[in-house]
Amino acid sequence: MQLGVCYYPEQWPRAMWADDAQRMAALGITHVRIAEFAWSRMEPRAGQYVWGWLDEAIDTLSARGLKLILGTPTASPPKWLIDAYPDVLPVRADGTRWNFGSRRHYDISSETYREACLRIVTAMAERYGAHASIVAWQTDNELGCHETVPSYSPAARRRFQAWLQRRYETVHGLNEAWGNVFWSMEYPSFDAIGLPNLTPTDANPIHLLDFRRFMSDEVASFHREQIDVLRRLAPHADLLHNFMGFFTTFDHYRFAADNSIDVAAWDSYPIARTESIALPEEQKALYARTAHPDVSAFDHDRYRAIGGGRFWVMEQQAGPVNWAPWNPVPAKGMVRLWAYEAFAHGAELVSYFRWRQCPYAQEQMHSGLNLPNNELSPGGLEVQQAAREIAASEALSGLDAPARAATALVFDYETQWMFEIQRHGKTFDYQTLAFDYYEALRELGLDVDIVSSRADLSQYGLVVVPGIAVIDDALIGQIERSSAQWVFGPRSGSKTADFAIPSNLAPGALQRVLPIQVLEVESLRPTLSPATSIGGTRGVAVHWREHVRANGETRVEAHFDDAWPAVLAHGRVRYVAGWLSHALHRAVLEQAAKDAGIRVHVLAEGLRIRRRGNLTFAFNFGAAQVEAPAPVDATFVLGQPQLGTGDVCAWQT
Amino acid sequence: MQLGVCYYPEQWPRAMWADDAQRMAALGITHVRIAEFAWSRMEPRAGQYVWGWLDEAIDTLSARGLKLILGTPTASPPKWLIDAYPDVLPVRADGTRWNFGSRRHYDISSETYREACLRIVTAMAERYGAHASIVAWQTDNELGCHETVPSYSPAARRRFQAWLQRRYETVHGLNEAWGNVFWSMEYPSFDAIGLPNLTPTDANPIHLLDFRRFMSDEVASFHREQIDVLRRLAPHADLLHNFMGFFTTFDHYRFAADNSIDVAAWDSYPIARTESIALPEEQKALYARTAHPDVSAFDHDRYRAIGGGRFWVMEQQAGPVNWAPWNPVPAKGMVRLWAYEAFAHGAELVSYFRWRQCPYAQEQMHSGLNLPNNELSPGGLEVQQAAREIAASEALSGLDAPARAATALVFDYETQWMFEIQRHGKTFDYQTLAFDYYEALRELGLDVDIVSSRADLSQYGLVVVPGIAVIDDALIGQIERSSAQWVFGPRSGSKTADFAIPSNLAPGALQRVLPIQVLEVESLRPTLSPATSIGGTRGVAVHWREHVRANGETRVEAHFDDAWPAVLAHGRVRYVAGWLSHALHRAVLEQAAKDAGIRVHVLAEGLRIRRRGNLTFAFNFGAAQVEAPAPVDATFVLGQPQLGTGDVCAWQT
Amino acid sequence: MQLGVCYYPEQWPRAMWADDAQRMAALGITHVRIAEFAWSRMEPRAGQYVWGWLDEAIDTLSARGLKLILGTPTASPPKWLIDAYPDVLPVRADGTRWNFGSRRHYDISSETYREACLRIVTAMAERYGAHASIVAWQTDNELGCHETVPSYSPAARRRFQAWLQRRYETVHGLNEAWGNVFWSMEYPSFDAIGLPNLTPTDANPIHLLDFRRFMSDEVASFHREQIDVLRRLAPHADLLHNFMGFFTTFDHYRFAADNSIDVAAWDSYPIARTESIALPEEQKALYARTAHPDVSAFDHDRYRAIGGGRFWVMEQQAGPVNWAPWNPVPAKGMVRLWAYEAFAHGAELVSYFRWRQCPYAQEQMHSGLNLPNNELSPGGLEVQQAAREIAASEALSGLDAPARAATALVFDYETQWMFEIQRHGKTFDYQTLAFDYYEALRELGLDVDIVSSRADLSQYGLVVVPGIAVIDDALIGQIERSSAQWVFGPRSGSKTADFAIPSNLAPGALQRVLPIQVLEVESLRPTLSPATSIGGTRGVAVHWREHVRANGETRVEAHFDDAWPAVLAHGRVRYVAGWLSHALHRAVLEQAAKDAGIRVHVLAEGLRIRRRGNLTFAFNFGAAQVEAPAPVDATFVLGQPQLGTGDVCAWQT
Repeated sequence: MQLGVCYYPEQWPRAMWADDAQRMAALGITHVRIAEFAWSRMEPRAGQYVWGWLDEAIDTLSARGLKLILGTPTASPPKWLIDAYPDVLPVRADGTRWNFGSRRHYDISSETYREACLRIVTAMAERYGAHASIVAWQTDNELGCHETVPSYSPAARRRFQAWLQRRYETVHGLNEAWGNVFWSMEYPSFDAIGLPNLTPTDANPIHLLDFRRFMSDEVASFHREQIDVLRRLAPHADLLHNFMGFFTTFDHYRFAADNSIDVAAWDSYPIARTESIALPEEQKALYARTAHPDVSAFDHDRYRAIGGGRFWVMEQQAGPVNWAPWNPVPAKGMVRLWAYEAFAHGAELVSYFRWRQCPYAQEQMHSGLNLPNNELSPGGLEVQQAAREIAASEALSGLDAPARAATALVFDYETQWMFEIQRHGKTFDYQTLAFDYYEALRELGLDVDIVSSRADLSQYGLVVVPGIAVIDDALIGQIERSSAQWVFGPRSGSKTADFAIPSNLAPGALQRVLPIQVLEVESLRPTLSPATSIGGTRGVAVHWREHVRANGETRVEAHFDDAWPAVLAHGRVRYVAGWLSHALHRAVLEQAAKDAGIRVHVLAEGLRIRRRGNLTFAFNFGAAQVEAPAPVDATFVLGQPQLGTGDVCAWQT
Repeated sequence: MQLGVCYYPEQWPRAMWADDAQRMAALGITHVRIAEFAWSRMEPRAGQYVWGWLDEAIDTLSARGLKLILGTPTASPPKWLIDAYPDVLPVRADGTRWNFGSRRHYDISSETYREACLRIVTAMAERYGAHASIVAWQTDNELGCHETVPSYSPAARRRFQAWLQRRYETVHGLNEAWGNVFWSMEYPSFDAIGLPNLTPTDANPIHLLDFRRFMSDEVASFHREQIDVLRRLAPHADLLHNFMGFFTTFDHYRFAADNSIDVAAWDSYPIARTESIALPEEQKALYARTAHPDVSAFDHDRYRAIGGGRFWVMEQQAGPVNWAPWNPVPAKGMVRLWAYEAFAHGAELVSYFRWRQCPYAQEQMHSGLNLPNNELSPGGLEVQQAAREIAASEALSGLDAPARAATALVFDYETQWMFEIQRHGKTFDYQTLAFDYYEALRELGLDVDIVSSRADLSQYGLVVVPGIAVIDDALIGQIERSSAQWVFGPRSGSKTADFAIPSNLAPGALQRVLPIQVLEVESLRPTLSPATSIGGTRGVAVHWREHVRANGETRVEAHFDDAWPAVLAHGRVRYVAGWLSHALHRAVLEQAAKDAGIRVHVLAEGLRIRRRGNLTFAFNFGAAQVEAPAPVDATFVLGQPQLGTGDVCAWQT
Repeated sequence: MQLGVCYYPEQWPRAMWADDAQRMAALGITHVRIAEFAWSRMEPRAGQYVWGWLDEAIDTLSARGLKLILGTPTASPPKWLIDAYPDVLPVRADGTRWNFGSRRHYDISSETYREACLRIVTAMAERYGAHASIVAWQTDNELGCHETVPSYSPAARRRFQAWLQRRYETVHGLNEAWGNVFWSMEYPSFDAIGLPNLTPTDANPIHLLDFRRFMSDEVASFHREQIDVLRRLAPHADLLHNFMGFFTTFDHYRFAADNSIDVAAWDSYPIARTESIALPEEQKALYARTAHPDVSAFDHDRYRAIGGGRFWVMEQQAGPVNWAPWNPVPAKGMVRLWAYEAFAHGAELVSYFRWRQCPYAQEQMHSGLNLPNNELSPGGLEVQQAAREIAASEALSGLDAPARAATALVFDYETQWMFEIQRHGKTFDYQTLAFDYYEALRELGLDVDIVSSRADLSQYGLVVVPGIAVIDDALIGQIERSSAQWVFGPRSGSKTADFAIPSNLAPGALQRVLPIQVLEVESLRPTLSPATSIGGTRGVAVHWREHVRANGETRVEAHFDDAWPAVLAHGRVRYVAGWLSHALHRAVLEQAAKDAGIRVHVLAEGLRIRRRGNLTFAFNFGAAQVEAPAPVDATFVLGQPQLGTGDVCAWQT
C-alpha cells in the first residue's frame, strides 16, 4: 500500500517546491507524478529544449526520497507546433477541425504529429531515462478522452485504407466480407474507401466496426511508438499509461499486449462517474456523495487483468471535481475509503489528483490534497489519516499480491463497439449490462476477476459472460476444457467477426455446447416488460428480450409469461434470453455460484467486501449503519465491524 | 388479393435462387420485386453493363410463374459514379456534404446525376422493358427518405432560382408577393436569391414554403424523367414508386398527376411507425405489439386516392424491424392481419419485405419471411396461413374493387408544410391533427376516403377538413355545389397562397359560406386547457385555440368556459375553433355524420371494421377480446366474430 | 405617462398613411418609432438614396402632432451589400457562415460593415437630424439578438488580438494572467491567439471571459460609432438603443457609459419571456396569461439604472406574440396593466409593438394594436382605455420622476458571464438567482433599484448582492462607507478579475469586512438538498452549497442539517452560503430589511405594488381577487382596491 500524488511544479513558483516536497513526504506520500502537460516549458520553441526547471524540480522531489513518475507531454502539443503543422488538429465527424486552446487537440493518425512526439519523448528519455528516482514513465494522458478519437482526418483515411488492405488483402475480399453488394456499396479499390461519417443513413456496421478497430489500433500504436523509445532509454522503469474508467474507445487488452505496459494505471473519479453513467436515477440519488459501491471496483478488477495482475490508481478523486453535471462534496471518509478499496482490489499504489488545487485555468474547481491557499483540504486530511494508519500497521503496509478469484466476468471491448453500432433499441448498452451482472456478483459477496475471453479461464469455478457478440472456436474450447459453471447473457454469439448473423443463427458456435437457436429478438420500450420468475424471485425483462428455441436436451429453467424461455441450460452452460431486472440477474448468478460450489453471502445494501491475502476489507457506501460480516474470531487490523457511511474495516482470518 | 415479396438475388449465392423461387411459389407468392439497389452489379464500372446475373434471376423467378416488379437502382449510386462526380452528393442545411457509404447519397437537383440516372434506366428498360413477366416498374426507392431532400447544394440553388423566375416572372413581383420589404429582404435579381438555410433567425415563411414547393416539384420531376423513359420502353407495365407512411416531404397528389404513376405503392411498417409518430404515450404503450389501429389504414386510404383507386403495399412489415427507437416482436397474428387490413382498404397486392433476412450489412436486424438460416420465420408462417386461406376462398380471392366511401377527409400537403414552417406552438402538427380526426371517424365505424381538396367531392355525405391553410374559390365552389355536411378544423383559411393572412382575416374565403372571423389565435402550453362540452361530452382544447367572432346568422354550437365559441356553424358548414381533446372531435364528427344521415357505430377499443364489396372485415388491435359487429345473419368467410388480439374476421351481408 | 407605437410605413400602401396617423393621434398615441428595418428602401442600390417616401411618411405623421423616433436600419443590411461584401455575414461557433434571408446577418467586427453603417447613418442624419418632430434616434435594433454575437469570424479574431494587446501589453503578461502554463497553452505572440471555439474540451475560462468582454466592447463600439455621427448631426434629439429583457450578452452599464445613450429603452414581451426563462414549471403554469409579476419589473428597474434614471419601453407586447414555445392570448386587462406597471417603475414612454399586425413575412403571427384588417385589436382597445384614463387624470398624466428606492439589488454582467462559463453544476444560473432575490424583495412590498456595483450605493438602507464573482477594493470601500445592511449570496468574491480563485480563498476581499473562508463548494443534483431553518422558515439549499468556515467574530445565523453554516454575519454584512429555496431567501431579506429599519409588507400571491411620486400603484397578476394594501384614507386616482386578475389601481397618500 503506497500513496502518491500528481504534481505540477511548472504551475507554481519555484520558491514553493522545496516546501511542497517536504510536506508530501511528511504526509506519507511516496510517489509523485509530474510533467505530463509541460511541453511548452520543455520546448518553448521548436527544437529549443529547456530542462533546467525540470532538473531542479526532479532534484527537489528526489531529495526528499520521493519516487517519480514522469509523463510524456504529448496530450498537449504547444501552439508553435500547431502553427507549423495545422494538420495536427483532429477532425470532427462533421468535417470541422478542432481548435487549439484546451488539450488533446491532435490527430492520432497524423504522421507529422507522431514524429514530433517521438522527438520530444526521445529528448526527455535521453535526459532522464537513467535517473534513479524515476521509477516509472507514463505516456501521454488519458488517451481517447474528449472524443478526439476517432478523428475523421485525411490522414486517418489514408491509414485506414492501408489498415484495410492489410486485413483484407484484396478489395474484392473486403467487398465480400462487408457484404457491400447491399445498397451497391462496393468499392473499386482500397483508396476509394472513405470514413463512415456523414452518411445519410446508417453506414454499413462492419465499416463502422472496422473503423473502430482501426482507431483502437491507432491508439495502441501511438502509445507503442513512445514505449519503444522508453524501453531503450529508460530500461529500468515501469512503463504505463493512465487509462480511464468506464472507457471503451479502444481495446485495452490489445493495447496492453506484447509488454506495451508493465502496469495498468487508471484515473478514478467515482462520484463524477456515478453521476455520468447510465445508472437508475434512484441509485444516483442514493450514492451521490459516496459513489456507487461498484463503480470503482469494476475498473479496479478490469485493470488488474489488463495489467497482468499489476495495477495502480494514477489519479484518485480527492474531493469535489469539476466535470460532472453536478459535483457534490464527497461524504466524510470517502477519500480515505477509496484508497483502501483500491488496495483491497490489488492496487500497488494509489496516487491522488492533485497536490494542490490550481486557482487558475480549466481545472480551478477541481480539488486537491491542499486548498489553493496551501492548507490541507478535507480530502488531504483523510489521506493523512490513511497514511498514518498504514504506516502503523504491518498487516496493511505489507499486503500480499491479490489472488485469483473463483469467479470471472468476461468483458469484451469489441462487443461494446458492435452493440453501440447496432443498439437495436435505444436503451441497450453492453457495458451497463455487464456492470449490472458485476454488481449482482458483488452483492453476493464474491470477489471477481474481470477478464478477456482470450485469457486462461481454466481455473475459475464460475465464468459469467454478460454478452459477447462473437463466440469463436477458442471460446468453445475454453468451455469444453473447463469444469466451471458458465452463464451467457443475451446477444451472445449473435455476430460473426465480420459483423453478420451466424449462418446457424445466434448464439452461433455456442450451440456446440448449448443447443439453442435465437429465432427473433426484440428491444423493449419501457412499457413492455415480459415477466418471469427465477427461484422464487419475480421480475421482468427490460431493454431486450429474445425468442429462443431449445433444441436437443436443453432444459428451460424459467419461462416468460408468454411462454418463451427466459433461462436455458445444458450441462454447465446457461443462457439468459433477455436483459433481466437486477434481482433476476442476481438470482441466476446465485444459482450458478451454488452449482459451482462457490459460497455466496448476500450483503446489506451499500456494503461490499473484498479479500486480499489473509485480509478481508469491508466498505460501507450506504446511508445506514451496517455490520461487516466478519467471523467472531476475526482480528481487526483496521476499524471495527460497525460501519457508518464512508467507514471501512479490515480483519485477518 | 395477391401476395408478393421483395427479393435481392444479388445478395445470395446463385445456387439458392431456384429453390427460393420454388418456395415462393409454394408459399402462395405471386409477385416479386427485385433489383432496386443493384446498380453496382448492373454497371460495375462506368458504361460497362453486366446483365447476365439479372437475366438469370429474372428467368429463374419467371420459370415458377412469378410476376416481377423491377426497380430502378437510382437510390444507391455506386462509388465510381460519386468519385467521377463528387457534386452528386447532397448538401446538408449546415452546408456540409453528405458522404458515400449508405444510400440516398444523391442531390436530387444535380443535373449530372439526373443524366446518369437516365442512362442506367434506359439501359435497363431497353433490356427488360418488353419482358412478359415484368408486370411493373418501380422508380428509385422511397424518395425523400433519410432527409436528403431538401438538399442545399449549388445545383439546388440554381434550379430554385429558375423555378422562382417561372413562378413570379419578375423579381419585383417576387419581392411584392413575398413581402420582402419586411426586414429589407428585397432581392435585386433572381440570381441573388439563396436557399433559406443558415439564417440567424426565421427565414421569410414564403421563402421556406416556396423552397418546399420547389423541392416537391424536384422529387416529382426526378421521378418523371424516369417514367418518360419507361413509358416508351416498357409500355405494358404498371409504373409506380414506393411511397412511405406519414410522409409529407413532397405533394403526393402533384407527384401522381398526369399519369406519372399507374398505381400508388407504399411501404407499411406499422409497429415502427406507431413508435415513431407523435402519439400519446398511453397509445404507444397500448399498441406496442399490434401497431395503432389506424396507423396503416390512414395511409391505405390516402394512397388509394393518390393512386386513383389503385394501390399496393410494396413493402409490408413481416416481423420485428430495425429502425425505430425500440423494435418489439409483433403480437401473434399481426403479420397476417395487416395483409387482410390492406385488402379491406382496397389493396390489390400486399408484398412483404423481404424474402429472407439478410445476415449482413445495414438491415441485418430487419426480419423477413425467412430467417437467415432459411427456415420460415414466425411472420412467414402467418403469410403461409393467409395465402392458404385466400386460395381456399372465392370470396377472398375474388374481391371487388373498393367503393367510394360516404365520408371524405381532406388531407393537404401544403398545409403540412405551412404549419411546419409556422407551428406557432411547439406541439402543433397538422398531420397529427388530421390523424386524430381520422381516428375519430374510424372509431365511429365509418369507411373514409382521404382526398385532395381538388378532388371531386360532390358525392360525399360528410366532408371533414381537419384544417387547410389556404381556402380558394374552387373549394368554396365545392361547398356550394355539394349537399354534404362540412366540418373545418382550426387554422382553416388562415393563409393565402403567398403565405399571408387573408385581408378579411381567417378563415378567408370560407366566410362566404360561414360568416365568422378569427380575431386572435393562441398556442397552448400543456397547462392551458380551455374547457368545453359538446353534446354531453366534456373536454378541453389542447395545443391550439382561437378567438372567433360569429358574424351574421352563424350559430355557436358550443362555447369554451371563457365564453369564446368552440364550435360554430352556418348551414351545412361547421368550424371547430381549436384542437379539441379526442372525445370532443368524435362528438363533433358524430353529430355531423348524423346530420348527413350517415349511420355510425361506436366500436370497442382496438376494434376496426372496413367494407370492401359485399364483405365487411373486422380487426382487433386491442388487448381485450371483442365481438365483431356482424349482423346475426352474416356469413363468415374468414374467422369468427369473437376476436382476440391480432384476430381478423370477414363476413358477407 | 406617454404612449407610443412602432410603425412601418414602408410595409403599407401610402394611401393608408394619413388615416393611420389620424387614428394614432385619436387613440392617444404621442410617439411613433419608424424606419429601423428600411435600409433596402432608403438605399435600394449602393449609394443611391431614395428619401421621398420617408419624407412623406415623416411629414404625414408630424402633421398630426406625432413625435418621431427614427431608427437606423443597420440590423438588416440589404442584399446588394452582402453580395458586394460577403464577409459581412457573421460566423457561427462551428465555423459556418450565417446566411442572408432574415435579419441581424452581420458580423459586428466587420470593418467593412462598420463603414457601410456609418455611410447610411450619416446620410439619414444629414437629411433628418434637424427635423423638429424627430425627438429621438434609435441605433440598430436589439443588438445581440439571435446569437449572432459573438461571431467567430477572421475579423473578430484580428480585433480580439488587438484588444488583448491593449489589455495585456505583452504576450508574456497575457500568458501569466491567463495561467497558460496549464496544459501548455502558452502563446508565442498575440497574433497566434485564436478564438475560444471548437476546443475539444473546455477552453481556458479567462480566454472565454476575455472573448466575452471583447465582444461586449464590440457591441458598445458598434453603437458608439453611430452615436458619434448622430450627436453631431442630431444634437437636440435623445439618442438611445432598444435593449432586450433578461439579456446579458453585453455589459449594459459599460454600453451606457460616457453618454452613449440619453435614455435606456427596452422591448418588453412579458408573456413570452415568462415562457422562455428558467422559472419553475408551476410558475409558468400560474402566470401563463398574465406573465410572472416580476418579469417586466426586473428589467424596468434594471434599465432605469442603465438610463441614469430615464427609461422607455420601446416595444410593449400588445397581444399574443409569435416566438415563444407557446404563445397564448394575454388575460384581459394585461395590455393596459403593463403600461401602468412601466409608468409606476418610472417609464417616461410606453410604446407598443406594433401599430398593425403585418399579414406577411416573419412576424405575421405577432399581434399589434390593430388587426390586419385594420380594426382595433383587443389589445388596441385596452390601450385606448388607458390613454383615455391618463388624459382624464392630472395625477396620472403629470407623474413625478421616480425617487431612489431604499433597497438596492446589485446586478453584474461579468458575473453572469463568469458563471455561464463555469456553471460547475448544470442548473446554476446567476441571473435566475438574482431574479429569485428580486422576487423575494418585491413580495415583501419593497421598491427596488437594480444597480451596478460601481454605482454610488451610499444612500441605500439595504444592499442585496445575490452574488458577484469579483469583489474589488472599491466595493469594500462602499461597504465600509455605507451604513446599510448588506446581504451577499453564494459565489460572491469567488474569483479575481483574471478568473482565478483568490489567494485567500473566496470570498476574497470581502473577508476584510466579513471574516469567513469558503473551503469547498458543491453543485447539487436535485435529490441533494441540505436543509436549514431561518427565523422559523424551513427550507433547503438547491443547485449550490458551500462549506464555509467562520473566522474571527463572525456569527453563524443558521446552520444546515450537516452543521455547515447557512447564513453568516459580521456587523452589517451577511453571507448566504448556498442557493436557498425561495422562502428562505425571503426570510433572510426580511430580517435584513428589518435590521435596516425598512418596513416590509408581505403581499398576497400575484399582487405587486410600486410607488412613484405620491402615487402607489397596485397590480394583480394572480388568479384570485386580492385587495390592494391602501390605507383607509387613500384617494384612488385609478381603479379601486378590489383587484381581479389583470386589474390595476393607484392611490395618493
